[in-house]
Amino acid sequence: MRNFTRGFHYLRKLNAANVPAALLENGQKRVIDASLTLIRERAKLKAELLRALGGATACTTLLGVPLGHNSSFLQGPAFAPPRIREAIWCGSTNSSTEEGKELKDPRVLTDVGDVPVQELRDCGVDDDKLMDIISESVKLVMEQDLLRPLVLGGDHSISFPVVRAVSEKLGGPIDILHLDAHPDIYDAFEGNVYSHASSFARIMEGGYARRLLQVGLRSITREGREQGKRFGVEQYEMRTFSRDRPMLENLKLGEGVKGVYVSVDVDCLDPAFAPGVSHIEPGGLSFREVLNILHNLRGDIVAADVVEFNPQRDTVDGMTAMVAAKLVRELTAKISK
Amino acid sequence: MRNFTRGFHYLRKLNAANVPAALLENGQKRVIDASLTLIRERAKLKAELLRALGGATACTTLLGVPLGHNSSFLQGPAFAPPRIREAIWCGSTNSSTEEGKELKDPRVLTDVGDVPVQELRDCGVDDDKLMDIISESVKLVMEQDLLRPLVLGGDHSISFPVVRAVSEKLGGPIDILHLDAHPDIYDAFEGNVYSHASSFARIMEGGYARRLLQVGLRSITREGREQGKRFGVEQYEMRTFSRDRPMLENLKLGEGVKGVYVSVDVDCLDPAFAPGVSHIEPGGLSFREVLNILHNLRGDIVAADVVEFNPQRDTVDGMTAMVAAKLVRELTAKISK
Amino acid sequence: MRNFTRGFHYLRKLNAANVPAALLENGQKRVIDASLTLIRERAKLKAELLRALGGATACTTLLGVPLGHNSSFLQGPAFAPPRIREAIWCGSTNSSTEEGKELKDPRVLTDVGDVPVQELRDCGVDDDKLMDIISESVKLVMEQDLLRPLVLGGDHSISFPVVRAVSEKLGGPIDILHLDAHPDIYDAFEGNVYSHASSFARIMEGGYARRLLQVGLRSITREGREQGKRFGVEQYEMRTFSRDRPMLENLKLGEGVKGVYVSVDVDCLDPAFAPGVSHIEPGGLSFREVLNILHNLRGDIVAADVVEFNPQRDTVDGMTAMVAAKLVRELTAKISK
Amino acid sequence: MRNFTRGFHYLRKLNAANVPAALLENGQKRVIDASLTLIRERAKLKAELLRALGGATACTTLLGVPLGHNSSFLQGPAFAPPRIREAIWCGSTNSSTEEGKELKDPRVLTDVGDVPVQELRDCGVDDDKLMDIISESVKLVMEQDLLRPLVLGGDHSISFPVVRAVSEKLGGPIDILHLDAHPDIYDAFEGNVYSHASSFARIMEGGYARRLLQVGLRSITREGREQGKRFGVEQYEMRTFSRDRPMLENLKLGEGVKGVYVSVDVDCLDPAFAPGVSHIEPGGLSFREVLNILHNLRGDIVAADVVEFNPQRDTVDGMTAMVAAKLVRELTAKISK
Amino acid sequence: MRNFTRGFHYLRKLNAANVPAALLENGQKRVIDASLTLIRERAKLKAELLRALGGATACTTLLGVPLGHNSSFLQGPAFAPPRIREAIWCGSTNSSTEEGKELKDPRVLTDVGDVPVQELRDCGVDDDKLMDIISESVKLVMEQDLLRPLVLGGDHSISFPVVRAVSEKLGGPIDILHLDAHPDIYDAFEGNVYSHASSFARIMEGGYARRLLQVGLRSITREGREQGKRFGVEQYEMRTFSRDRPMLENLKLGEGVKGVYVSVDVDCLDPAFAPGVSHIEPGGLSFREVLNILHNLRGDIVAADVVEFNPQRDTVDGMTAMVAAKLVRELTAKISK
Amino acid sequence: MRNFTRGFHYLRKLNAANVPAALLENGQKRVIDASLTLIRERAKLKAELLRALGGATACTTLLGVPLGHNSSFLQGPAFAPPRIREAIWCGSTNSSTEEGKELKDPRVLTDVGDVPVQELRDCGVDDDKLMDIISESVKLVMEQDLLRPLVLGGDHSISFPVVRAVSEKLGGPIDILHLDAHPDIYDAFEGNVYSHASSFARIMEGGYARRLLQVGLRSITREGREQGKRFGVEQYEMRTFSRDRPMLENLKLGEGVKGVYVSVDVDCLDPAFAPGVSHIEPGGLSFREVLNILHNLRGDIVAADVVEFNPQRDTVDGMTAMVAAKLVRELTAKISK
Repeated sequence: MRNFTRGFHYLRKLNAANVPAALLENGQKRVIDASLTLIRERAKLKAELLRALGGATACTTLLGVPLGHNSSFLQGPAFAPPRIREAIWCGSTNSSTEEGKELKDPRVLTDVGDVPVQELRDCGVDDDKLMDIISESVKLVMEQDLLRPLVLGGDHSISFPVVRAVSEKLGGPIDILHLDAHPDIYDAFEGNVYSHASSFARIMEGGYARRLLQVGLRSITREGREQGKRFGVEQYEMRTFSRDRPMLENLKLGEGVKGVYVSVDVDCLDPAFAPGVSHIEPGGLSFREVLNILHNLRGDIVAADVVEFNPQRDTVDGMTAMVAAKLVRELTAKISK
Repeated sequence: MRNFTRGFHYLRKLNAANVPAALLENGQKRVIDASLTLIRERAKLKAELLRALGGATACTTLLGVPLGHNSSFLQGPAFAPPRIREAIWCGSTNSSTEEGKELKDPRVLTDVGDVPVQELRDCGVDDDKLMDIISESVKLVMEQDLLRPLVLGGDHSISFPVVRAVSEKLGGPIDILHLDAHPDIYDAFEGNVYSHASSFARIMEGGYARRLLQVGLRSITREGREQGKRFGVEQYEMRTFSRDRPMLENLKLGEGVKGVYVSVDVDCLDPAFAPGVSHIEPGGLSFREVLNILHNLRGDIVAADVVEFNPQRDTVDGMTAMVAAKLVRELTAKISK
Repeated sequence: MRNFTRGFHYLRKLNAANVPAALLENGQKRVIDASLTLIRERAKLKAELLRALGGATACTTLLGVPLGHNSSFLQGPAFAPPRIREAIWCGSTNSSTEEGKELKDPRVLTDVGDVPVQELRDCGVDDDKLMDIISESVKLVMEQDLLRPLVLGGDHSISFPVVRAVSEKLGGPIDILHLDAHPDIYDAFEGNVYSHASSFARIMEGGYARRLLQVGLRSITREGREQGKRFGVEQYEMRTFSRDRPMLENLKLGEGVKGVYVSVDVDCLDPAFAPGVSHIEPGGLSFREVLNILHNLRGDIVAADVVEFNPQRDTVDGMTAMVAAKLVRELTAKISK
Repeated sequence: MRNFTRGFHYLRKLNAANVPAALLENGQKRVIDASLTLIRERAKLKAELLRALGGATACTTLLGVPLGHNSSFLQGPAFAPPRIREAIWCGSTNSSTEEGKELKDPRVLTDVGDVPVQELRDCGVDDDKLMDIISESVKLVMEQDLLRPLVLGGDHSISFPVVRAVSEKLGGPIDILHLDAHPDIYDAFEGNVYSHASSFARIMEGGYARRLLQVGLRSITREGREQGKRFGVEQYEMRTFSRDRPMLENLKLGEGVKGVYVSVDVDCLDPAFAPGVSHIEPGGLSFREVLNILHNLRGDIVAADVVEFNPQRDTVDGMTAMVAAKLVRELTAKISK
Repeated sequence: MRNFTRGFHYLRKLNAANVPAALLENGQKRVIDASLTLIRERAKLKAELLRALGGATACTTLLGVPLGHNSSFLQGPAFAPPRIREAIWCGSTNSSTEEGKELKDPRVLTDVGDVPVQELRDCGVDDDKLMDIISESVKLVMEQDLLRPLVLGGDHSISFPVVRAVSEKLGGPIDILHLDAHPDIYDAFEGNVYSHASSFARIMEGGYARRLLQVGLRSITREGREQGKRFGVEQYEMRTFSRDRPMLENLKLGEGVKGVYVSVDVDCLDPAFAPGVSHIEPGGLSFREVLNILHNLRGDIVAADVVEFNPQRDTVDGMTAMVAAKLVRELTAKISK
Repeated sequence: MRNFTRGFHYLRKLNAANVPAALLENGQKRVIDASLTLIRERAKLKAELLRALGGATACTTLLGVPLGHNSSFLQGPAFAPPRIREAIWCGSTNSSTEEGKELKDPRVLTDVGDVPVQELRDCGVDDDKLMDIISESVKLVMEQDLLRPLVLGGDHSISFPVVRAVSEKLGGPIDILHLDAHPDIYDAFEGNVYSHASSFARIMEGGYARRLLQVGLRSITREGREQGKRFGVEQYEMRTFSRDRPMLENLKLGEGVKGVYVSVDVDCLDPAFAPGVSHIEPGGLSFREVLNILHNLRGDIVAADVVEFNPQRDTVDGMTAMVAAKLVRELTAKISK
C-alpha cells in the first residue's frame, strides 16, 4: 500500500447541492467539540493520577497527530503514531533511558492518545480548522500544568500548529532546535501554505520563535537559504558538520525566552540509520551524533515533536520505528523532571 | 515491529496504592462518555447528510475496532482499520463493485471512524467494559436507521460484542455466515473467555444467532467439532469443499429471523491469496470461491465484519490490504440499497 | 524506487525561447531515423541467419517497448523488457515448452531488442510520434517475412500501435484474444487518448480488429460495459467464469480475417499468481487457467504482446518475471512453426 | 546470502602432498562411525520410549538430511530441516491434522535429528560415501521396528539413497507416488549421477520401485519423456490435470509389493502456494489439490520425504515453511497407526 | 517464521508415568556420549591433518552452538552457525583478511562442526546438562593443542559454558573483551540463571575472568551498573565513546593471566550496520570502529565467540551474515599463528 | 531474479555450420554502425541545444553502459542505468546540489542514452569489439566539445574502455581518483582480461593514467598489493583511514596532465549506506566521508563513472539507487561549468 494519496478516509465533497450548509457546519462543530472533549478528559485523568502519585514537576505526555496529507511526496507518516508507541513498549529493549530514567514510571511518561485527524477530514473539516484543532489539543494538554507535550507526527506540517500553541500558551516566543535534512521554510509548496515544507516559515512569521537552529541540512535550494537569512535562522549544513560539531554538541538555549522546543525530523539521520522516511537523502547524521547533540543540550525543554517517520518505507522488522521510539525515549529523559 | 505484545499503549497498573479508586473510576467514565459521544456525533452527521441527499434505504457504514490483544499469537490486526480504508480509496482500482455499484456515492458507503480501543486500554479500561463499549458503539450506528454497520477488525474477538449489539438492537437472533479457517468456538483459550478463538462460543451461548454456518474450516480440533455439535453449528470443512461447493454457492439465509450477518476472517482464504494473516493455514479458499459464495448469497444482510487482516505480515505492496478492501467493497454491494 | 513519475530521463522542455524550432525538429528526425535503422538492421541480421539455417516458416521475434508513462497509477512496466528476457534465459528451468518445443533453437525464438522509448522521449519526441515509431518498428520486424513479433511491454497503451501496425501490414482486420482484469476500452483516461485504459477503444475505432474477446474482467465500470457494447466486444467477466470456462478452453479464432492476435495483460492473473502488477485486483485467473485457454486456442497467431508486468512490485525472487517469461515461452510455442 | 555455492563448510582439498592417505581415511572412518552411532542411539531411545508408552504400531519418525550441493541451481534446501521443524511446532496452528490425529502424542510423531551432512563433507567425505551414509541412517531408523522414516530434505538427490534403503530393508521393490514439477529422471545432469535431476533414474535402474507415478509435471524435455517410457513411469502432466484429476484423487498403490513411498517435491505446488523453491515453475497444483490426492491415497505408506523447500527464497514470514510443515503433518497422519 | 518459541524440535515431556526413569536416563547418556565422541573425532582428525601439514602453532577452530532458547525475546540465533559458515565461504569476497592472512590455508582456519543442541533438547536433556556438554565440547577442541576455539552462537548464554571451559582447561582466569549493547550481567532474567542476559554474572561469580571490559553499552539499567560495580567490571558506554575511543583503540590485555577472550555480540554494532539482531538498539558502534578496536588489541587471544546474529531478522541478501562472517575472519587473523 | 547468468538476451552460438561467416560479420557491422550512429545523433542534438542556449563551457553528459557479464559473482549492475536515472529525477528530493547548482538546467546535466550492450551481445558481438564500441561511444560524446561524459555502469570492467577513450581523445594520460573496496588491478580473473577485477591493470598497462589513487580499500590480496606497487598506485586502505583522512579531504590532482577522472564504485561505501552492491564488504566509508573527499577535490574533472550499483540487491525502496543518484548529482556539480 505504498501509493496512499487521499488519507485513510475518502474525502468526499460533502457540500452537495441538496445539503444545507448549516447542517454540515453544525454537525462538524459537534464532532469537533466531541473530539476536543475526549482529549481534555484523557489529559485530565492522566494529570489527576500524576498528582495522586506525587513527586513529579514535569511529565512527558505523548499526543499523536496522524496527519500525512501535507506531504509533497508520500503520506505514510499518517500511520506513524501507533507504530512508535508499539516500538516504545515492544519489550526488545529495557525501559531505562541511556542516562538511567525509568520510563515505566507514569510520572516520567504518559499518553493522551491521538487527535482524530482522519475522521475529522472525513467529516469535511478543512485544513484551517484542522490546524486550529491541533493547536487546541496541545493547549488542552498544557492546561494540566504538570503535562508537557511530546507530539508524535505525522508529517512536518504539524510543527506549526504545535509550536503556535506552545508559544501562545506560555505567552511568548521560544527557542527551537530543529534537526532535519531540509529547512522546511519555503513560503509555500505547490500553493499549500500548510505544506510540510513550509511549517517553519509559518512559525517565524508568527513570531513564535526567537532563535531557530537548523541542524542536519543537506537538501536546500537558493530559496531555502534566502528564507533562512530573511528570518535570521541559524542554518548548519552537513557540508560543514565536522567543523560545527563541537559547538553543536555544546548548545545552551532558551535563555530570556519561555523555553526550548525540539523538533526532530527523522530524516535528519542518514537513511542508513533511518530508512523509513519519505525523502531519502544520503549524507546525514548518525544516530549517535543526534544523541550527542540532544544529551548535551542545556535548557528547559517545554515541548517537542518527532515527525516524518514513514512506516510504509520501514524495514520489515521496523528498524526506523525503533529509532523513532528511542528518540522519543531520550527526549522524554530531557523533558521529565 | 513484528513482536508486538502489549498494545500500542503500555498498560500500566494505574490503581497504585496512593491512587483513590474513585478518581480512576470517575476519570475512566468521563473518557468513555466522551468516546461514545464522538461516535454518536459522527453517526448523526453522516445520517443527516444521507437524509439530505435522499434515495437510500440502507447505507453501509464503516466502524473500525483496532483491537488485537485477544489474539493468541500476534496482535497486528490492531493496525488494520486505517490500512483497509487506505486500500479502499487508493486509486489503483476503479470505484465500481463487480456488479456495478458506485462506491463514491455517499449513499452507498459511509464511515464513522474508529472506537478508540488503545486509548481506552491505556486509561485502564478492562476487557469487560471494552466489550460493552464496542457493543454500544455498534448500537449508536444502528440508532441512525439508514446506517448498517460493517465493522473493520481487529482480531476475531470483536465479532462477539458486534453480533450481540446487532441482535439486541434488532430484538432477536440472526443467521450468521462465518468464513474462516478456524471455528473460533472454543470455550476459552488459555483462560481468556474473550479470546479470538472463543467469540462464536459466546455468540451461541448468548442466543444471538439461530443458524451459524462455518465455511473454510481446516484447522479444527476434537473440541472444535464437539462444540460445533453442541451448538448446532453447520461446519463445512475444506476437506469436502469440492463436494459442498454447489450448495454453498446457492445459500439462502435469514428467513424467520431478524436478518443475516456475514463475518469474514481473512484467513478463510488460502495464504497464497491472503498472506497477511497471523495464522498461516494452507489449503484454503481462493478469492473467487469466496466471492462466488457472497455474490450468490440471498438474504437481508443487516451487518458484517472483516477481521484478522494483519498488516505486519502483509507483502510490501499490501496485497492482503487490497484483498480485505475488496471484501469490504463487495460486502458493501450486498448491504447497501 | 517505487514512485517513479517522469520516465527514466527527465523530459525537459527543450523548445526554449532561444532554441530554433528547426534545430530541434531536425535533430529529432535524425535520432528517430537512427533508431529505426538500428531495429531494421537487427531484424535483417536475424532473418538472414534464419534463412541460412533453413527449415522455419514462422519465428517468434521479441521486440521490447519499455514505455510506462501512459499508466494512470505506476510506471514500473517501463522496466519490464530486460527482466522478462533475463527470466526466459535464467537457467532455473529447462528450455522446452510444455508441449515440447525447444526454445534454444534460433528458428523458434529470436530477438531484435528494444525500441529506445526513453531516449526518444528525452529528445523531446511527443506521444503522437512515439506511437508512430512503435508501429513502424513492428512493421520493420514483419518486413522480414519469417519473423512474427511478440512484443514485451511496457504498459497496455502499446497494444494500440502494435495492433495497428499488424493490421496495416497484413492488409485487414484481425481477431484479438485479450486477457485482462480491465477492459481498457475507455474513451480516454484523464484526457489522455493514449492511456493504457483506452488502447482497445483506439483499436476498435481504427477498424483494426474484427472480433475482440476480453477474458478475465473483474474491474469494469458502466462506461466500460457501454463501450463494449458499442464496439461489439465479447466481454467475459470473472463473475461467470465457471460457466464460460468450457467455451473459453475451446476457442477457434481468425477465420476469414488476416490472423489472430493475443494480448496478455499480466493482471488477468489473480495477484496470488502474479503480484508484480500495478493494479492489484483479487479474484483473477490461475496460471493454469490461462494456459488451458492458450494451449487450446485454434487459429493462426500472427503476433502477440505480454504487457503490464511491473518489476517494481514483484517479489524479491522475481516470481512474476518468471510468470511473464512462461507466458512468452508458451506463446512462442503457439506462434513459431 | 542467496548465492551459496560451496556448502556450509569450505571443502578444502584435504589430501595434500604431505598428508598420508591412511591418516585421512582412518579419521574419516572414525567420524562416520561416530555419526552413525549418534543416529542409532537417538533412534533407540525414541523406540524405547515408544514401547514404554505402548499402543502404537507405526510411528512417523523425522530424519533431516541437510544436503543441497546436488542441485543444479541453488543450494538453499540444505537449510530446510530446522526451518520445517520450527514451522511444525511454531504455535500459530493447532496440533491436530485435518482428519483429527494429535501430533503432540509422541506415538504419532517423533524425531531422530539430522544426518551431519555438512560436517561429513568438511571432513572430505565424498558423494559415494555420503549416499551410503544416508542409506545407512535410514536403515538405522527402520531397525527399530515401530519407526517409519519421514525424511526432510535437502534437495531431491536424497530420494535415491532413501528409497534404496527402504527397499533393501524391506526386501523388495515398492510403489512410489512422486509429486513434482520435474521428472528428475535424467541420466545425469552436467555429469553428476547423483544430481537432484537424476534421482529417479537411479531408483528405477536399481529396481527399487515397481510403479512410479509422477504427478504435477510441467517442465519436462524430450529426454525426460523418453526416460519415462524406458522405465515404464506413469507420468501425469499438468497440461491434462483437469482430465486426470478424478483418477489421481482415487489412487490405490502398493498391492503385491512391500509398501508405498511418497516423495513430495515442494515445487509440485504452483509458486503462488509455495514461493520458497529453487525452481519457480508457474502452472502447478494448488495446496488443496495436493491434499486431496494424499488424503484419498489408499495403501500402506512405509516411508516418505518432503524435499526442495528452499528457505532462502521463502517469504519473510515463512509461508513455504508452513506449507512444507503441513505436508509433513498430513503425511504423518497417513503413516502413523 | 519469525515467532519461533520452542526450539526446532518440540520438547515433549518425556518422563510420562509409564516411562521408567532409568530408561530415559540411560538413553540420554548414550546420546550424549555419542554426541561428544563425534566432536572428539572431528577435532582429532583436524588436528592430525594440521600436524601433517606442519608449520602452525595455533589454528582457529570453529565450533557451532545453535542454541537460542535462553533469549528473552526471539530465538533466531539458533539458526546462525550454518549461515555464518556459508557467508565465510560464499565467494563474494576474497579469502584474505584485511592484514593479509589467507583463510583457505587449513592451518589458519578449521572447523569441527556443531554441538547438536536441538537434538539433545529433543531427547529431554535439560539446561544444566546442556551447559556441561557445551563446556565439554570446548575442552575436546582444546584437548588438541594446536586448536583454539572460535565459537559461533547461538545466543549470548553460551559464553558462560565456553569461558568456563577455557578457564578450567587453561587453569586460571583470563581477561575478557566484551563488545555488546547490553552488559548481560543481570543476576537472572525472569528466573532463568542461564539467560543470555546473565552469562557474565555467571562468569564473574565463577572467577573465570580477571578483567572484564564491556564496550558498546547503550541499554543498561540501574541493576546493570550495580552488578558491574560489584564485579569490578570496566563498563564503557556509548554515551562517552568519543572520549574513550583513543584508549579503546589501544588496549593491551592478558598480562599475568592465562590469555585473552573476545566475546562479540553482533548488536554492539549500530543496527544500520547489523540489522539482523534480536534487540535493535540504535546508537551503536560502526563496523570500522569495532575493527579498529580488534586490530589494535594486543594480547594472546586463546578463544573467542561471535553471538546473537539472528538470521530471521537479516536483510534478504544477508548483510548481517556477511558482517558476522567478517568478524569471524578478522578474529581468526588475531588468533591463528 | 537474483541468479542472472547470461545477460538479458541469450547468447546463442550464431556461427553454426551452415551460416556463412561473411553473413554474420556483415550483419554485425551494420548493427554496430547503426548503434554508433544513434549515439552520435543524440550527442549532436544535445550539443546543438546547448550551443543555442549558450553560457556553458562544460556540460555533464550521462552515458549508460548496461554491462554486467564481466562480474565474477552477480550480473545485476547491467540493470543499473535506468534505475539511476529514475532516482535522479524521482521527485523525492529537490533539484539543487549541496552547493547550489541547479540540475534542471540542461546546461548543467544532459543525457545521450545507453550503449545497446545487450542487443550487441545478442547479435554475437564479442568482448573485444564491445570494449571498442564503448570507447568509441565515449569519444562520440567528447567529439561535441561542450560535453563531458559521466558514465553510468554497469560493472567496473567498463572503466577500462572509458578511461582509454578519454585519454586517447585528450591526447595523454590523466590522473584518476578511484573509490572502491577492491583494487580491481588483478592481472586477470579466472582467465578474463576484461574482468571487473582487472580494469585498472589494463588502464595502467595502457599508460592511460599517470597517478592512480585508490581509496576505501578493504578487500585486497597479496597480488593486489604487488600489482599496486608494480604500477605505482597510491593505495589507501580503510585500516588507516582515520590517519589518512585529512590528506584525502584535501586532494589536488591533474596538474601537468590532461585532467582528472573520478571512478566511484558504489561499494566504496559501507554496505550500511549502500546495500545494493554485488560484493558486501563491511567496514567502508560513510556517504558523508565520500562527499567530503569529492567536495574538496581540486582539479579539472574531464570525465567520471559511477559503477557496480546492483538494483537486484537494493532495498525495496531503492535506497542505493538514491545513493548512486546523489553521487551522480554531486559529481555533476564538480564537472559542469
